[in-house]
Amino acid sequence: MIKNITNVRGIKCWGAHTGIKSMRRDLALIYSEVPANVGMVTTQNQVVAEPIKLARKYMADGKAQAIVVNAGNANACTGPDGYKGAEAMAQAAADELKIEPEMVLVASTGLIGEPFPTEEITKGIRDNIRKLASKSSAGSFAANAILTTDTFAKEGFLEFDLDGFEVNMAGIAKGSGMIHPRLGTMLAFIVTDVAIEVDLLQKTVREVAEKTFNMITVDGDTSTNDIVAVLANGMAENEPMKTKRDKGYKVFRAKLEEMMEHLAKLIVSDGEGASKFITYEAFNAPDEETARTLVRAVFDSTLVKAAMFGRDPNWGRIICAAGNAGVPFDYRSVDLYLGDDNSQVLVLEKGIPQKYDRKYMKKLLRAADITIRLDLNNGDAKAKGWGADLTTDYVLFNSVYTT
Amino acid sequence: MIKNITNVRGIKCWGAHTGIKSMRRDLALIYSEVPANVGMVTTQNQVVAEPIKLARKYMADGKAQAIVVNAGNANACTGPDGYKGAEAMAQAAADELKIEPEMVLVASTGLIGEPFPTEEITKGIRDNIRKLASKSSAGSFAANAILTTDTFAKEGFLEFDLDGFEVNMAGIAKGSGMIHPRLGTMLAFIVTDVAIEVDLLQKTVREVAEKTFNMITVDGDTSTNDIVAVLANGMAENEPMKTKRDKGYKVFRAKLEEMMEHLAKLIVSDGEGASKFITYEAFNAPDEETARTLVRAVFDSTLVKAAMFGRDPNWGRIICAAGNAGVPFDYRSVDLYLGDDNSQVLVLEKGIPQKYDRKYMKKLLRAADITIRLDLNNGDAKAKGWGADLTTDYVLFNSVYTT
Repeated sequence: MIKNITNVRGIKCWGAHTGIKSMRRDLALIYSEVPANVGMVTTQNQVVAEPIKLARKYMADGKAQAIVVNAGNANACTGPDGYKGAEAMAQAAADELKIEPEMVLVASTGLIGEPFPTEEITKGIRDNIRKLASKSSAGSFAANAILTTDTFAKEGFLEFDLDGFEVNMAGIAKGSGMIHPRLGTMLAFIVTDVAIEVDLLQKTVREVAEKTFNMITVDGDTSTNDIVAVLANGMAENEPMKTKRDKGYKVFRAKLEEMMEHLAKLIVSDGEGASKFITYEAFNAPDEETARTLVRAVFDSTLVKAAMFGRDPNWGRIICAAGNAGVPFDYRSVDLYLGDDNSQVLVLEKGIPQKYDRKYMKKLLRAADITIRLDLNNGDAKAKGWGADLTTDYVLFNSVYTT
Repeated sequence: MIKNITNVRGIKCWGAHTGIKSMRRDLALIYSEVPANVGMVTTQNQVVAEPIKLARKYMADGKAQAIVVNAGNANACTGPDGYKGAEAMAQAAADELKIEPEMVLVASTGLIGEPFPTEEITKGIRDNIRKLASKSSAGSFAANAILTTDTFAKEGFLEFDLDGFEVNMAGIAKGSGMIHPRLGTMLAFIVTDVAIEVDLLQKTVREVAEKTFNMITVDGDTSTNDIVAVLANGMAENEPMKTKRDKGYKVFRAKLEEMMEHLAKLIVSDGEGASKFITYEAFNAPDEETARTLVRAVFDSTLVKAAMFGRDPNWGRIICAAGNAGVPFDYRSVDLYLGDDNSQVLVLEKGIPQKYDRKYMKKLLRAADITIRLDLNNGDAKAKGWGADLTTDYVLFNSVYTT
C-alpha cells in the first residue's frame, strides 16, 4: 500500500502522545532488531542542544539500535538538568528494550530554553516501547511525532537491487518552512538494511548531507538541535561495503543522495509563509565547492527571494549576490537562465543582457516552482540548491511573533 | 519514492492554508484533467451538512471533475447562508478551472454551527487553483488539508494489472479516533484511472463501503458531514466495465475493498484516547448481514471496549452483546476466540467455557492489536469490523470538552 520506514528489515516504530504537545503525537520511537552502524551529522551552531551532546558521545563508536525523539521541547539551553533528561530518555528506552543506553540515539525539537519535562517523557517511553510495530501506520505515527510547526509529515521509501541483494531504505524528516524560524530544527532519520562498514557510512553520510540537507535554505539559521542520522543494520545480507570501490557502493550512494534530496526538498516545500519553491543551479564551475558557495550566496539573498515572490525577473540581484559570494566570479563569462521548471529564458549571455519577452517571463514566474540556472562556462563541476521565496506573510508572521 | 494520489493519471492536487485553522493547511483541491464518473455514499444522519446537500444534487448525474474540501468549519446547521457558501465554493473552483460548477464535489469538516467563512474560503480557492500540481508533495498537502483533530494523514496507493491495462488507485481519508467525537467526521476520497460505467461504479462503491467504512467504530456516531467518494476518470484506457461479469471487475472490486479497508483501519488507529486496535470477526454465519450485525453489536458495546482497555478476558460481555444484536444467536453453538493478532485462545467451545491459562491470556491482551473471533458454526458467511478500546483518557477528554 504505502511503504515507509517500517518496510526496512528489522525496523519497528511507534509515535505516541505524551502531552508536551496538545493533541498531537510528540514522541517517536524507532528500533532495529539488530545493532546498526550509524553515520550522522549534527548542528554547526555553537549553542548545542543537550541531546545532541549526548548523541555525539553515545554514537562516537558508530553503533546504535534505537532512536528516541521528543517534539515540543528542544532541551536546549537547559543546562545539566537538560543533559540528565537526555540521559534519562536513553536509559528508559534501554531498560525497556534490554540494550545498553549507549545504543540509543536521542534527539529533541521544539521550544528552546523551556525546562525539560524529563518525567513525562521517560514515562511516555516506558509506556510505549511495547507498542513498537512494523505495520505502516506505526511508521506514520513516528513520522508525525517528530513534527512541530510542520504542516505535513515528510517520508521517503526506496527499494533497490544492490549487486543481487534487495535493499530497502526509508526516512522521515522534520523541518517546517518559514513560519517560526526559531523552531526551525531540521531532523532527518534514515534507516536501511544495507550492510556497510561504519567508517565508509560516516564518510558517505557527511558528503551526501553536504550536497542535500546543507543545500536548502529556510531562513539561513542553523538550529541548536539539527541532526541527520543514517542507521544501516545489515539485514539485507549483502557483503558489507568497505571502500568506495566496492561493488554496489555507487548504487547505494546514489540512492542515499536521492533519499536525502527528497527529504530536504520536502522540508523546503513546507511553510505557509512561502509561496514558491525555487531550484538553484550553478554549473560548468571550476569545482564543486565554488558551485555550492555560489548557490548558497544566491539563495540566501533576501533581495533575490523577495524578487521571486514579486515575480520580478530582476536578474541583477542574482548576479550581485553571486559577486558577493567570496569566490572568484567573472560575470562577463556567465550565462543566466530564469523561468519555471519546464521553460527557462536566457536573460544574460556571457555577461550581456538579452532581450526577452517580459510578459512571457512574468507568466513563467507565476509558477509555484521556479528555476534559476547559472552557467559559469568555466569548468565542469556543478551544484544544486533549493529554497523558498521571501513573502509578506513571512515578515508578518515573524514581526509579531513575540507580541 | 512515496506514491500517492498524484500518481493516478490526470490527477493534480494542492493543499493550502486559508486561515480557518491556525497554522495548518485547511483547503484541499483535487482535479482530474478529464471528467470522471463518481460513486459516493454520504451520511445517514438526519441532520445533513450543506455541502453534502449540494454534493447529492451536483453528483446526481454521476459526473465530477474536481473535489474541493475545507477543514475547520463543517458548514452544518448553517442554513441558507451555509448552502450558498457551498455553492460559492463550487463556483469559485469552476471559474478558475473553466468547468461547470456541477462538476465540483464540495465537502467540509470541522465545527458544527459556526457561521461559514465563505469569502475567505472562496478567496483561498481562487488563489490556489493555479498551484495544482502532480508532484507527490502536492498530494501530501491535500491529504493533510482535510484533517481536523487527526494526528496523521491517511493515504493509500495501489497499482495493479487489469486485464493487461495498468491501473492506479489512490485515496486520502480523514477521521480521528476518539478525541473529539463531535468533530469526528469521516471523509474519504479515492481516485482511480480505471474506466467503469457510472451505474456499476455507484453500486460497487455502496457495497464495498458497507463492508469497510461502515464496519469501523469510533464512538457509534455518524457525523453530519460524512462522505466517501470514488472518482474514476478512465485514463487507464481499459474497456469500460459495465457489469459485474465484465473482465477485470473482480480485480477492481478487490482492490477497491483493499483501499477502503486500509483507509478505514487508519481512521480507527488514530486517536490518542484509544490504546488498542481491535479486529472483530464473525464467521460461519448464515448470511453476511447477520455476521455484520453481530460484529457491530459487539464492537459498539462499551462493556467490551472497556474490558479490552483493562486487558480483561471477560468474554461474557462479548456473548452478551451478541445476544442483544437483534438477530438469531444461539450461544450453545458458538466458538469464541480471544487474543492478539498472532495467537488466539479458544475461550468458549459450542457454548461451553474452556479452561485456559489466564496469565498467558493477560499477556496476549497487553498487545496493541487485539482480535476477537466468533465462529457461529451455522453457515459460511462472514464479516469483519475494526474498532478501538474505551479508555479512561477518552472519558476524561470528553467529560471536560465544553468546560
